Amino acid sequence: MVTVIKIGGNIIDNPAELEQFLTDFSKIEGPKVLVHGGGKSATKMAQNIGLEPQMIEGRRITDAPMLDVVVMIYAGQINKNIVAQLQAKNNNAIGFSGADGNLIQSVKRNHPTIDYGFVGDVKQVNTNLLKTLLDNHIVPVFCAITHDKDGQLLNTNADTIASELSIALSEIEEVTLTYCFEKQGVLQDSEDDSSVITAINEELYLKLKEDKVIHSGMIPKLDNCFNSLSRGVQKIKIGHHKMLQNPDVLHTTITL
Amino acid sequence: MVTVIKIGGNIIDNPAELEQFLTDFSKIEGPKVLVHGGGKSATKMAQNIGLEPQMIEGRRITDAPMLDVVVMIYAGQINKNIVAQLQAKNNNAIGFSGADGNLIQSVKRNHPTIDYGFVGDVKQVNTNLLKTLLDNHIVPVFCAITHDKDGQLLNTNADTIASELSIALSEIEEVTLTYCFEKQGVLQDSEDDSSVITAINEELYLKLKEDKVIHSGMIPKLDNCFNSLSRGVQKIKIGHHKMLQNPDVLHTTITL
Repeated sequence: MVTVIKIGGNIIDNPAELEQFLTDFSKIEGPKVLVHGGGKSATKMAQNIGLEPQMIEGRRITDAPMLDVVVMIYAGQINKNIVAQLQAKNNNAIGFSGADGNLIQSVKRNHPTIDYGFVGDVKQVNTNLLKTLLDNHIVPVFCAITHDKDGQLLNTNADTIASELSIALSEIEEVTLTYCFEKQGVLQDSEDDSSVITAINEELYLKLKEDKVIHSGMIPKLDNCFNSLSRGVQKIKIGHHKMLQNPDVLHTTITL
Repeated sequence: MVTVIKIGGNIIDNPAELEQFLTDFSKIEGPKVLVHGGGKSATKMAQNIGLEPQMIEGRRITDAPMLDVVVMIYAGQINKNIVAQLQAKNNNAIGFSGADGNLIQSVKRNHPTIDYGFVGDVKQVNTNLLKTLLDNHIVPVFCAITHDKDGQLLNTNADTIASELSIALSEIEEVTLTYCFEKQGVLQDSEDDSSVITAINEELYLKLKEDKVIHSGMIPKLDNCFNSLSRGVQKIKIGHHKMLQNPDVLHTTITL
């Protein structure tokens, strides 16, 4: 069984939280993969050097100077510090972008109306190399940078990287994919953090969408989950990272 | 036979030169390792965000904000762009800091009078993992960042990284280490680029030092070479990277 865990900016931006998460993550037994998002430091760095971050529909437009910044911050600063911390906790971590070992090849997004810039949609995962690494007790740590195999680095959504890695790995082993975020899971009432829906399958999801219990930002997140499940991932969990140290902590488990 | 090549800032800072070098490097057959220095972009970035680079005796003093910058630039921007370009040339490159896979563990420098900051002196190389990577036809690309295995990243001299990797690999295979720099090799007359001394052994080195033909910056460089040779490296070449595509280009070969 392979454990794939994705952490987002809320953990990355808080050193104490990150330290706690990495301690819990380091104790997970068996093959595991960590995928991390970016947090606020790329935006901060862009501002520091006078770039204006551009967003369209909540997505960052990645022009060439912004790509430089996200590569520096995601693949450099954040990734290497996480790797060094995991090494201190005796996890043999290696940090990767998708370019490394051609692990995640993507295609520059070609949208009919919006030019996203240097943004890549995942095309294929080098499952053989990933398996060789896991067999050698390596803990891969992925940042959200991929490449087009033609020399161009590309910015790619970290949730997508986590799901594509999980789908690829599910061809060879059972995979549990965990998305850690600031809430405890999918909530019945978005104002009440204790109203966690602990299990969702496709049937319930359709009903919850119809009843508008699940709405806005949670819809693409859950669509992405059901896409991963239908493509082979066995189980997906969504919740706060404290569930890693204490399995009694409420969270949402998603299955087909 | 393993080929280890180190390139410095003069190549990194010139995109056309770097492209040519990577094309030549990609054609080298057999197991190979690339080590790259930093170039001017770390200094430029430090100035952009308002840091004052501090130097003592030609060495950068690495305080915490400067460490952040060199990690970003060396392990992020430079390393990942080199990896993506090598992938485009069908070399299965993976970029590494010393923290990744605990490949290069170092010790924070403890100097009696100068506080170098977050600078590491190499303590050990994870030769087993390096060999596994080479056996899997991976081309490791190292930046000049290491770690102390206690969670701290450290800035380490790229020449030293190249020599320590070569020494470690020489325990299992024959190693040729090549230092590419802006000159064609060790010169008889530092003003005349064609006055290359094509072969130097220890005896000749001592004589050339005595006669002051070799002086200033070349002395630590060559001391480092003879140290590597005495610790197992079979052959060291120093010269301009154009010798990679054309072996008739003059360069200096150093042996014991």
